[in-house]
Amino acid sequence: MEFASRAAEFRPSPVRAVFETAMDPSVVSLAGGNPDLSVLPGGDIGALASSLLAERGGEILQYGSGAGTTPLRDLVVQLMSRGGSDITSADVLPTTGSQAGLDLVTKLYCNPGDVILAEGPTYVGALGVFGAYEVDVRHVEVDEHGLDPQRVATALEQLAAEGKRVPFVYVIPSFQNPTGVTMPAERRRELVRVCAKRDVMIVEDDPYPLLSFDRSGPLPSMHGMDPEHVIHLGSFSKIFAPGLRVGWLVAPPEVRGRLQIAAESVVIHPSNLAQSLVTSWVGSEQWEPALDRAVEFYRERWQAMKAALEEFMPEHASWTEPTGGFFTWVTVPGLADKDDLLRDAIEQGVVLVPGSACYSDGRSSDAVRLAFSGVSPVRIREGVKRFAQIL
Amino acid sequence: MEFASRAAEFRPSPVRAVFETAMDPSVVSLAGGNPDLSVLPGGDIGALASSLLAERGGEILQYGSGAGTTPLRDLVVQLMSRGGSDITSADVLPTTGSQAGLDLVTKLYCNPGDVILAEGPTYVGALGVFGAYEVDVRHVEVDEHGLDPQRVATALEQLAAEGKRVPFVYVIPSFQNPTGVTMPAERRRELVRVCAKRDVMIVEDDPYPLLSFDRSGPLPSMHGMDPEHVIHLGSFSKIFAPGLRVGWLVAPPEVRGRLQIAAESVVIHPSNLAQSLVTSWVGSEQWEPALDRAVEFYRERWQAMKAALEEFMPEHASWTEPTGGFFTWVTVPGLADKDDLLRDAIEQGVVLVPGSACYSDGRSSDAVRLAFSGVSPVRIREGVKRFAQIL
Repeated sequence: MEFASRAAEFRPSPVRAVFETAMDPSVVSLAGGNPDLSVLPGGDIGALASSLLAERGGEILQYGSGAGTTPLRDLVVQLMSRGGSDITSADVLPTTGSQAGLDLVTKLYCNPGDVILAEGPTYVGALGVFGAYEVDVRHVEVDEHGLDPQRVATALEQLAAEGKRVPFVYVIPSFQNPTGVTMPAERRRELVRVCAKRDVMIVEDDPYPLLSFDRSGPLPSMHGMDPEHVIHLGSFSKIFAPGLRVGWLVAPPEVRGRLQIAAESVVIHPSNLAQSLVTSWVGSEQWEPALDRAVEFYRERWQAMKAALEEFMPEHASWTEPTGGFFTWVTVPGLADKDDLLRDAIEQGVVLVPGSACYSDGRSSDAVRLAFSGVSPVRIREGVKRFAQIL
Repeated sequence: MEFASRAAEFRPSPVRAVFETAMDPSVVSLAGGNPDLSVLPGGDIGALASSLLAERGGEILQYGSGAGTTPLRDLVVQLMSRGGSDITSADVLPTTGSQAGLDLVTKLYCNPGDVILAEGPTYVGALGVFGAYEVDVRHVEVDEHGLDPQRVATALEQLAAEGKRVPFVYVIPSFQNPTGVTMPAERRRELVRVCAKRDVMIVEDDPYPLLSFDRSGPLPSMHGMDPEHVIHLGSFSKIFAPGLRVGWLVAPPEVRGRLQIAAESVVIHPSNLAQSLVTSWVGSEQWEPALDRAVEFYRERWQAMKAALEEFMPEHASWTEPTGGFFTWVTVPGLADKDDLLRDAIEQGVVLVPGSACYSDGRSSDAVRLAFSGVSPVRIREGVKRFAQIL
């Protein structure tokens, strides 16, 4: 039996494709955006899981509500208030990781042939989601302050002139994946105005806002500025543990209700154990100090990567200067001419994400995404050195 | 912004819609197919989780492989061998519950307007999955031995004559949801022949095969009979714990590879903690004795329900006689004339699944699905009594 037409658009993520290679200890992985988990006390977290199951096992192991657990939703209300969102637990839908939330939003809004505006470059995983719904992605190039709302307005006008339906703009405002750049508050406000005026939703994918190197609070979220026109995707993967697969979305009431129905038809409900463990840990007094330590690692690692880039990169190379998060975007003129950058890199013992993977059309790119979050400073220096050797 | 056209087909599951009502202790829930978890030692399972996190927390809490963990896949290989499937761990894809597997298979195979053949009646949750992909469902009525392959052959011929594309037949062969009936081995073999001949896949949704009241081993699975034409969906929800959301699928290699890419684009990978805990419990010596005790409960509860049906149902009512699993299908001529059966039932303090919910066209039905798996014999009697009062 033939597959459906959409199957032609299923694309393996290049990060996932090198997942096994990246586990090889002889290889330096600058590919995956892995959080540092050495700050997590496995024994304490195990003890939390143990007491949850001993005390409420009958409830946690049984079917749960498609709306998610109330304690987790209450916790998200608190977290979202840091970015200026004034919501109640009824506005929150826990998801099996935030990418599952993006899948649901795309499923709800996008017909085949619709256009999504996204940053250029954007998160490779999002391109996989959009492809599966046969959506066209148009990129608006970012600068050092992220997406420029005026460029978005121009793109939306052009797409309207082409008769294209644009259900939403997909944007990662804080420490963007893959460039590490952050949209200032004023740009966020202007983007909200631009999109609301045209009845285009904003999907704000925001897994990194608490990871500012200087430990300043998050910038105001676009959701907080205009909750009727913004769907917010959040994640516990970068502030606790990706292996549990817990994220959330916040959306206007009717939209949230539809998304819950769509979610229930796929997973019935999010894992109770994962939700409970996240609630216990992130709700504990140990969470924020551990996060502080992790962010201190990220800051040191970025410093190590910056030093290595300055030491090993050719003179004409350039890179973004993230103030938080996991990534920098390194541009080396001429890199696009390489036949198979990733193969060459793996041969040198380093993995990374080629820039072309971050564009829906797979255009050639002079850039790569380097992740510094999950690797020690010594290994970062070695990885950048190996990367320099293929240039 | 308007929703996509598929959103018109998003339907809340009637089981999920009454989930909160069913939690009310004054209401007897014969609606949800909840396993009995009183047989699970919460302290022991908590201790397993604790030691997993203490010993391998860095791995379990980190990103994992989209292919799932090897120990869980090895465990599935053993379980599948009981039904006669000769596979390796590479053939198995763990999923976030088996319904997520059905979602992936539908996403891979079905264009809008395609037709899926399903049992009449069928699992309500599957109808939610199919609706989200704008697929038409045609039902083939079951008898006391489940789906009749000759009727399937006739339906496939008719659909071919109509020019319809039929990617797969969806079938729940053991202790079917909602009727409780089981397809004998010979019917399974014949259905495999009928479908293979026409290059139509079989999606074998099989969460209950180990729940035979007499503790006989499972019947041969259709997957074991023809692994090239059958995609098998399995679940740990009924033999361990639904709250963890762990299922699996087994498919031919190229199909499994495509399904993994589709799965990664939604959830990146299945929860490591859930996979590890399932592997530890189901791989332990405690698992099978606990399952034996649970099935003994199901057997007793079915006896209690049968006795209550005999005591309270009107003379013209009839019901299926399950030999395992969670459900019976009760037909009361004239029931279809009721305006709002579920509302009347809730007013009497009992919830159940109206038969009409188990058909894609919502046709009126003289039947209801009654679940006996998660309720004590005393409450079952009370629930059936309350149901009888609305007749």
